[in-house]
Amino acid sequence: MSKPAVVLLSGGLDSTTCLGLAINEGYDVTALSFDYNQRHQVELEAARQVAAFYGVQKHFVFSVGLFREIGGSALTDNIAVPRGRSAETMGQGIPVTYVPARNLVFLSYALGVAERAGAEDIFIGVNAVDYSGYPDCRPEFIEAFQRTADLAVKAAVEGARYKVHAPLVRLSKAEIVQLGTSLGVPYHLTHSCYDPVGPGLACGGCDSCILRREGFEHAGVPDPTRYATSAA
Amino acid sequence: MSKPAVVLLSGGLDSTTCLGLAINEGYDVTALSFDYNQRHQVELEAARQVAAFYGVQKHFVFSVGLFREIGGSALTDNIAVPRGRSAETMGQGIPVTYVPARNLVFLSYALGVAERAGAEDIFIGVNAVDYSGYPDCRPEFIEAFQRTADLAVKAAVEGARYKVHAPLVRLSKAEIVQLGTSLGVPYHLTHSCYDPVGPGLACGGCDSCILRREGFEHAGVPDPTRYATSAA
Repeated sequence: MSKPAVVLLSGGLDSTTCLGLAINEGYDVTALSFDYNQRHQVELEAARQVAAFYGVQKHFVFSVGLFREIGGSALTDNIAVPRGRSAETMGQGIPVTYVPARNLVFLSYALGVAERAGAEDIFIGVNAVDYSGYPDCRPEFIEAFQRTADLAVKAAVEGARYKVHAPLVRLSKAEIVQLGTSLGVPYHLTHSCYDPVGPGLACGGCDSCILRREGFEHAGVPDPTRYATSAA
Repeated sequence: MSKPAVVLLSGGLDSTTCLGLAINEGYDVTALSFDYNQRHQVELEAARQVAAFYGVQKHFVFSVGLFREIGGSALTDNIAVPRGRSAETMGQGIPVTYVPARNLVFLSYALGVAERAGAEDIFIGVNAVDYSGYPDCRPEFIEAFQRTADLAVKAAVEGARYKVHAPLVRLSKAEIVQLGTSLGVPYHLTHSCYDPVGPGLACGGCDSCILRREGFEHAGVPDPTRYATSAA
């Protein structure tokens, strides 16, 4: 019987690659997605299609009202999503698309699901290289969370030792695309754009579009995404 | 101007005492409660009344579907709440009223709210003495969470240092009642019973009722609660 694991799945490029890796390693996956009133809620449909592609039977989509209530992010509030920034500019501070405590909340849910599923392995597609601005994408955060998990739940008292896998944390976007392509990850089903222009039409200019486009370009892999604007 | 703080408020004896302490220390409080399909959902009305008593203007009640979905607890699932256990028996293992990762999820929400409120102080009424069975009520869990908080959010990158206050963690229930009584905590508004028999009528025999009754008794303070059964 294969080992159970919980995978956080936004429906984007990184989390889908992460799921592909977990599947490739033979884990029996429970996938978790979150409806938090994000501007790019269309990513949830991508997450469903990705889960179906991989035959993931257990896919929770949790509704989290917290981020809508507290606001303060361009992803959940009436704040403009920045366009046309270079990768260098993006690395120089925490962007307005930051959502307070998001990965902490998501990982906490994942731990609850993992405990009930008898899983000790949690996968999260955070990446600290291309997008160093998000504090909750850093390895030190992931390590601290893992230590907390081992103290937080009954299963840990009874001997479970949690491992939070962040296999993409040190990779560039191009390396992620290359890795995923070698594993047959269905990038045509994924969604990255923070601020979609229309159905199946990415803006092409937000940080997430720019990093995705550059990642595919540098990897030498065709990007299946339809963009509203041509690359810079 | 008073310092902002976030207080987790279930509407029970401990969290209400914790709120009383924070108010007494002069904090400008944002209170957080959670609707997680708990059997004793009536505690949310108690939380509202307690918040009103203290004039707390900001009181969030978040709906968290996670615990209903994953189940596995007598508080959220079709599992009987134990009755008539002694305090000694309760201390001998993790009870079936344990909810997977509950305090971790609650504290993660609190951190998101704290970051947006500009607060660095979070209060939680956990207690490790009377009820040592819950792993997420132990000081070591609280300390690990605090270290994680300092790595999880933007405000911490910019210099904030979070303090998770657990002022009741080393007190007995009787000491909590004595402390709260000296502060004028409105225990008549609080609700503790896991499995209420009717409106305003506590079962009297669940772990939470037994600990509450014994706490008031040992403190020599009249318990304003109406119980369906007489004390053991």
